[in-house]
Amino acid sequence: MTASNPYAPSPTDYLSNVNSFQLIDSTLREGEQFANAFFDTEKKIEIAKALDDFGVDYIELTSPVASEQSYQDCKAICNLGLKAKILTHIRCHMDDARVAVETGVDGVDVVIGTSKFLRQYSHGKDMNYIAKSAVEVIEFVKSKGIEIRFSSEDSFRSDLVDLLNIYKTVDKIGVNRVGIADTVGCANPRQVYELIRTLKSVVSCDIECHFHNDTGCAIANAYTALEGGAKLIDVSVLGIGERNGITPLGGLMARMIVAAPDYVKSKYKLHKIRDIENLVAEAVEVNIPFNNPITGFCAFTHKAGIHAKAILANPSTYEILDPHDFGMKRYIHFANRLTGWNAIKARVDQLNLNLTDDQVKEVTAKIKKLGDVRPLNIDDVDSIIKEFHAEITTPRLGGANTSTKTSNIDLQSLDAIPETANEPAKKRTRIE
Amino acid sequence: MTASNPYAPSPTDYLSNVNSFQLIDSTLREGEQFANAFFDTEKKIEIAKALDDFGVDYIELTSPVASEQSYQDCKAICNLGLKAKILTHIRCHMDDARVAVETGVDGVDVVIGTSKFLRQYSHGKDMNYIAKSAVEVIEFVKSKGIEIRFSSEDSFRSDLVDLLNIYKTVDKIGVNRVGIADTVGCANPRQVYELIRTLKSVVSCDIECHFHNDTGCAIANAYTALEGGAKLIDVSVLGIGERNGITPLGGLMARMIVAAPDYVKSKYKLHKIRDIENLVAEAVEVNIPFNNPITGFCAFTHKAGIHAKAILANPSTYEILDPHDFGMKRYIHFANRLTGWNAIKARVDQLNLNLTDDQVKEVTAKIKKLGDVRPLNIDDVDSIIKEFHAEITTPRLGGANTSTKTSNIDLQSLDAIPETANEPAKKRTRIE
Repeated sequence: MTASNPYAPSPTDYLSNVNSFQLIDSTLREGEQFANAFFDTEKKIEIAKALDDFGVDYIELTSPVASEQSYQDCKAICNLGLKAKILTHIRCHMDDARVAVETGVDGVDVVIGTSKFLRQYSHGKDMNYIAKSAVEVIEFVKSKGIEIRFSSEDSFRSDLVDLLNIYKTVDKIGVNRVGIADTVGCANPRQVYELIRTLKSVVSCDIECHFHNDTGCAIANAYTALEGGAKLIDVSVLGIGERNGITPLGGLMARMIVAAPDYVKSKYKLHKIRDIENLVAEAVEVNIPFNNPITGFCAFTHKAGIHAKAILANPSTYEILDPHDFGMKRYIHFANRLTGWNAIKARVDQLNLNLTDDQVKEVTAKIKKLGDVRPLNIDDVDSIIKEFHAEITTPRLGGANTSTKTSNIDLQSLDAIPETANEPAKKRTRIE
Repeated sequence: MTASNPYAPSPTDYLSNVNSFQLIDSTLREGEQFANAFFDTEKKIEIAKALDDFGVDYIELTSPVASEQSYQDCKAICNLGLKAKILTHIRCHMDDARVAVETGVDGVDVVIGTSKFLRQYSHGKDMNYIAKSAVEVIEFVKSKGIEIRFSSEDSFRSDLVDLLNIYKTVDKIGVNRVGIADTVGCANPRQVYELIRTLKSVVSCDIECHFHNDTGCAIANAYTALEGGAKLIDVSVLGIGERNGITPLGGLMARMIVAAPDYVKSKYKLHKIRDIENLVAEAVEVNIPFNNPITGFCAFTHKAGIHAKAILANPSTYEILDPHDFGMKRYIHFANRLTGWNAIKARVDQLNLNLTDDQVKEVTAKIKKLGDVRPLNIDDVDSIIKEFHAEITTPRLGGANTSTKTSNIDLQSLDAIPETANEPAKKRTRIE
């Protein structure tokens, strides 16, 4: 940890790919396994184009053997001529591999369960059989001149020696990548780091990682994997996938921009995240989670008085992400009992009224008092401020003629919150 | 990593508190800083009682100097006689401390910004001033015979030497806890581990941690802090707090039950998580995120054919969390084109129909074909199955009399999904 930039990759992580990672978006494969997902061909193409425009390195599609339409869609997306490489994800069977290579994909992701659970309850094969099938499938796919990844499934519940053996075998015959998959979402960050470091000493090819989010660590595990030397991370838009999903594209970008700002900003169109999330959220009929990194309605909303004060002086005091990097805006939530006089002073200035600091403190006390009684909105606060201002500027000749300079209010400051917000805009405004 | 229990605390973490952690719930302090939060006294008491019933060790409340009602609410909650200890959270000022100790709290959480950002843009004080104020406040609170925690703010952007100096000072005068706070959500897990380990070598008191979730690592950072020797974690229900919030209570429970199942299950009423989340979600007018750990509508939904097959044989193949531990249920989503014949076979059995495996495979192909054309629901699948069954069991004398054994269907298997679900129940059912 250094005082100047504590977020940069640690210099002791000499294998770190934090500054050189790649993204495999699996919205159209893992995401299709999300409970609510049904993508028709048109929607798949729209999502693939949006991801390509954003800048993901790979787009992974459902196996062409899943259904006839899956096969046709795979071919259709391969024919779009996207910059992103197109992958499809198959079981470690020659039957699947033969169909996959016909679709025109740039690469095939092969997976097989190696944990005792999956060996017993899923395919029922032993490690010798797995190795034999893997070699056959890999050599076949390589003979077609396209990329091949071999991944174990449920890697963190697999025997370490079994894992290293099979990865060593497939690395020798020349796979492009090996994959580590936390299929059940059980892994924790330091465990991930250890496994990747160990694997890195055994294989020379790239390492890809796939993390489920059952225990809330999918973003952190991805980051730690990159620190340990993994190169590629599987993501999906909003993290959609089996159960509660995998590492989300947007959340990972929030994590990575802190560590590798130049790399991330130069490579990915971050201001497109909101649109892509809205596209997918609508397609699978979910709301953007209120607490989503970056695009959650409150991601850049500051409320407590001491926070608001410092944010007004320098946003970096309470922000590690700059909302502008994502095409988003910052909000100071001043209409509540936790508000401070600095936030109210900023509002008074916005309203183009003149009050001394002592007067602002006095009106702040009135606002906090009402805020104790009920939820406030901006109109409440503005009314209290304007009334207070009128009282101190108008000679006491009666109640008449309290109109003030309020016609100069910059209405832009009352902009509605971004469309991503899934909650009413009440009680918030923007101060920038 | 061992093959038998890869989730248990690592034996090399000899300072680990993964098996002996405590929870400080801050829904009524940090959570009050959430954009949408306005808790009246009645709601605060309802939430405090629910948290106490769940089993949190501490409940942290908004500073009594925030507003008059905050002061009254603090006293009211202290008078409830809960098992959980009641804390309030104040700035490192004697003015605040004097008010805090009057409220009847069991302890006071003191915080001051130590980063260069906060020292410059928030309070404008130097480290000598901070240390002097800290000592004065701490000795005053201790003199009242109640607990005292001293925390830095924005700890991960503070100078390491400054931090260790002040923690050493306050530890010597006898604080109960020191706090590390990732106020802006910038920290990553290995960085957290390193800082906690270092701090652990400097102080003898307990270490409390507070992690914001701006970059999606709040759960993982909390876990890693416990591995490094931290003892207490700040949480809030659904993670509500400034911006997109902090470590969520439910998400942390998902993480911890994997690592320390006996401790977690014996100490906390996990089946209450759903009710507490619903209570708070309703109070702050948000939906439970679709992908929330444990209570998200799809947290225990399995869709892909190969997943469904293995889950039916043994749920542990694709589940690290047992839904029953949380009073939740498992779903197999079989009405889609990714479905497999094992899932359909389970449905056929539920419908109390008799089909051979080959027949099930045949009807599965029909279902996948329709699933390619449009989203399916359970009725679609049941109709296809029943029609298929009727065709093969009824002599071909015409179309009449296709009624079968369907009157024996166990309608319990069509139970609606839990109330936590924020999406329509279509396309899913339960197979257990």
